[in-house]
Parts: sequence; C-alpha cells; structure tokens
Amino acid sequence: MLSSFPELSERDFERIGVSNRHEADDDEDVPAMAVHASKAALERANVAAESLDFLILVNWSERRYVPDIAPRVQELLGARKAFAFDVGCACAGFIYALSVAHGYLQNPRFQRGLVVASDYSRRRVRPGSRASLLFGDAAAAAVVGANINAGFNLVDYELGTDGSRSDLMDVDAENYLETHVRQRELNELAVSSLIRAGKNVLARQGLTFADVDYIVPHSGTAGIQTMLAEALSLPRKKILTNLPSVGNVTAASIPTALEHFLRDGTLRTGQLVLVLAVGVGWHFVAGLIEL
Amino acid sequence: MLSSFPELSERDFERIGVSNRHEADDDEDVPAMAVHASKAALERANVAAESLDFLILVNWSERRYVPDIAPRVQELLGARKAFAFDVGCACAGFIYALSVAHGYLQNPRFQRGLVVASDYSRRRVRPGSRASLLFGDAAAAAVVGANINAGFNLVDYELGTDGSRSDLMDVDAENYLETHVRQRELNELAVSSLIRAGKNVLARQGLTFADVDYIVPHSGTAGIQTMLAEALSLPRKKILTNLPSVGNVTAASIPTALEHFLRDGTLRTGQLVLVLAVGVGWHFVAGLIEL
Repeated sequence: MLSSFPELSERDFERIGVSNRHEADDDEDVPAMAVHASKAALERANVAAESLDFLILVNWSERRYVPDIAPRVQELLGARKAFAFDVGCACAGFIYALSVAHGYLQNPRFQRGLVVASDYSRRRVRPGSRASLLFGDAAAAAVVGANINAGFNLVDYELGTDGSRSDLMDVDAENYLETHVRQRELNELAVSSLIRAGKNVLARQGLTFADVDYIVPHSGTAGIQTMLAEALSLPRKKILTNLPSVGNVTAASIPTALEHFLRDGTLRTGQLVLVLAVGVGWHFVAGLIEL
Repeated sequence: MLSSFPELSERDFERIGVSNRHEADDDEDVPAMAVHASKAALERANVAAESLDFLILVNWSERRYVPDIAPRVQELLGARKAFAFDVGCACAGFIYALSVAHGYLQNPRFQRGLVVASDYSRRRVRPGSRASLLFGDAAAAAVVGANINAGFNLVDYELGTDGSRSDLMDVDAENYLETHVRQRELNELAVSSLIRAGKNVLARQGLTFADVDYIVPHSGTAGIQTMLAEALSLPRKKILTNLPSVGNVTAASIPTALEHFLRDGTLRTGQLVLVLAVGVGWHFVAGLIEL
C-alpha cells in the first residue's frame, strides 16, 4: 500500500487512520449490496420481506434521474407490499431516512419498514488519490417498526441543513468526489456541526454529552473523531468508531458501526447512545437511541 | 411546429394533446424555478421562509451525487431553520413528498414545511423527438402545516411501488429519457395503476370514485386521461387536467393543476378531490384532499 503513495509518510497514514477498507466486487452494485444487508437484517429481526410496508434506500454513490434505486431493491427482496424510494443527503442520509421512517410509523397503517444504506463510494473517488485510502464500500440495514420490544428505540432526532455551505464538495466531470475547501476547514466545520446537532437533541431531552454512554459519530476521518473528543472534553473511549477497519463508508457508517459494537459486546441493552453525522449538503444530524 | 414533424398528422397532435408548453430559460435551473414557486406559495400562505421547519424538493430532471439540491433552495429562500432534502420518484414525487411532510407534521416540534416540485424535463428529452411535444418545464410549491385552517386538508394518501417494472424507462447515455415499452402498454399500465392507487385510498375512507367532486391525475398524456375516464365510466369533465396548456410537467403536474383549477374557480372550498399519479419506478400514488 505504502508503495503506491511514496509522498505519504507513516504519520500521514496514521492521520488517515484506516487500515482496512472493504471494496465491493466489480459485479456488486448498490442494489445487490443493499439486498445482502437487508436480508441479514430481516433475518435477525425475524421479519418477512413480504410484510414490509415501506423500504427507504439511502445512497449517494449511485444516483440517477429515473428510476430511483429502491424499487429495484424492493423487487429483489420480494417486498411486494412496500412502497420504496431513495434518500440522498450523503453521509447524513441514514438519520434522515430514519426520521422519514419515524414519520410513517406515526401512521397506524404502517407497522414495519426497512431503512437500508448502501454505498460503493470507492467508485466515486479517483483511483490512487488520498481519498482512496479513506473510503470503503458497505451496506447496512435496519428493520424499523412501531411497538417493537427488541432492537433499539429512537428517542429523538435532530436534522439540520446549512445550504450556504452546499458548495463544499461535489463530483467532477468524471464523477469523482471533489473537495473545495482545505481538509482542516472541513474537519472544523464537521466537528462544530456534529456538536451542534448533538447539543440540540440532548437539550430537548434535558441531557448533556456526559449523560450518554457512547457517542457513535459518522466515520468521516480519524481527525474529526479526535477533534470531537477534544472539543467535548470526553475520554476517547466514549467515542466509538469502526473507521480503522472499514474506512469512511458514508451513508452506511452509522448502522455499520452500531452493528460492529453490538456484536463485540461494547453496546448493550439499557445504554443510551448518541449517533451523530454530517454530510455534504451541508447536513448535520443526530439521533438519540436507547438500546 | 408542424413543419418540424412532417411525419405527424393532425390526429397525432390531437393525441398528444398539448398545445402549449412552458420552456425554462437557459439561465433558469431547478433551484431557481423552485425558489420562484416557493416565494409565491409562501406569500399566498403568509408564511415567512425563516419560520419553515423543513423543505422538501421534488425533482427528477436535475439529480446529482452530492449535494442534494434542496439545500441550495433553502439558502436562496433564506429558510435558515429548515432542514432540506430531495425526493425523486419521477412523476409520483409530489405525493411521496407530501406523505413525508405529513409524517414530520405528526411531530409537534414541526409546524410548517414547504414541499416544492421543480422540473425542467424538456432538458431530459431529445430535441426534435415526439417527447419534446409533450413535456413542459414547471415548478409549484405548497406550504404544509399542522393545524392550519386554510388551503386544503390531506385526508389520506396511498403510496405504491412495483419494482418489477423499474425497467420501463430510464435515461440514455446523453441523459435523454428513453422508454422501453410501447406507448400503448405504458398507457394501460398507467391507467390500471392510477385506478389501483385511487381505489385503495377511497376504500379506506369508505368512498368510491363517484363520491369525489373531481379527479386530478398526473398530466401524463392525453391518452391516459381519456382511458382513465372510460375505465372509470366517469364523465370526462370530472377529470381535471391542464395538460393542454402546460404539457407533462412531471413532478410539478399535480400542484400546477390544482393551482390552475383553484384560480379559475373550478375547485372550491368544501370539495373532495382525488389526486392520482404514476411515476417511473414504478410508483403509483393517490391523495384524497378536502378543499
């Protein structure tokens, strides 16, 4: 790996902080990855695809004019009853989609839904660029429902958008991600935005950052996570990230991290967890969840 | 116009049924059109952009990877407090977005939102093609809120997706719309899908098609509207369309038609109106509204 980046020092690699990134196979696309993750989630929740009332696909890396990609996932899963559509919002998409699902679930007509994030962001970064050291491909899904006594409870959420910063990043003529500000500025904005979203949701619940058991931020970069811990004066271990083992997996980062730390036993029933994300838009979002 | 299409007869033009189509100026883009429509809607509703809690932009004709387009509209409107994101779903998008807004409005934290549809579909059809005779550019917006005693009330909605038909239409390498089935088959599917969505929402309310004052279908094509009236055995005048004067304005078709017939006095307070749409996906949706 180092040999491909002769200009980068060991220190640079430490700063990037990703030692392993999953890369989707050439024949894997966003719907296929989404189906794989969805089937695993449905099986764990013991919910049949046929019983789903809705399916929301979160994704930024394979957008198109028509059709949305969610209908293809609906078809591949056999979720015949489910209406299905896409949500973008880049790395903030999963919490946006959870909030949309939360809205539908206020309607007694809808009992079960699926929120699935699937991104092959590595195809949106220029091969050989530093970004290729950061981004990974991943999909993760959550079955959502009203009146379920399993999994986690979304206590509250916060959604924010600052359109005056919509020009921070986009894609170039070859559809590769481009950043128009310095990394330092982006990191600082990300950290202040994560804190802003978190503060808002915590304040509404009469809580502070010290009151939650763990914070699970969007994988972003290692730098953002270090800066976040410092800014909040929290011990580094209170901030859970699987960035080193998967990379920045964009829309899938929050559910992938939750799954990782549930599996390894760090996250346990009864804990209060704050998930935070930012995304090109500029979006800043938070979710307070009770395990 | 006829001279550009020597192969088309007067009968062909009658079948297409569009005598006037609005074309966006070259310097008008989806956000600019959305802002124009949004300002008009906010003014009519006497709501300040600054007070909006959310903004949903519906659009299929200008999609991109990142960022969503809604944040730019948020910024241009000065809707600083509003979170903002995009919904696609092609011509079914407006009702999808209304349903998302309806979900958010169940949360007492959100009082006011804006759903704006903005499409310049003429840039997605090949110049000189028959489709260029059908599609128009338009934007239209609705201020939505809980506990408002003005405007219309969304009594119920129906959302459906059939992902097994996701391959009916897409865009070609030049980003021009392509249809992969014969027009007759598409029309028949559209009519049966509109009826299915309408029946579902009406049945839930203990109503039939005969019980509503008017049906406002997605502008689609003139053929679809004629077939719909025939299939439902309803007088043609019960189906309101402004297709002849604006063309198929895709995501904006339902709100544009509602505005047209409210202005000319056809739609009046107290009436029950069924709005129906289909969209590439394949999506079929309905909304029952009380004026």
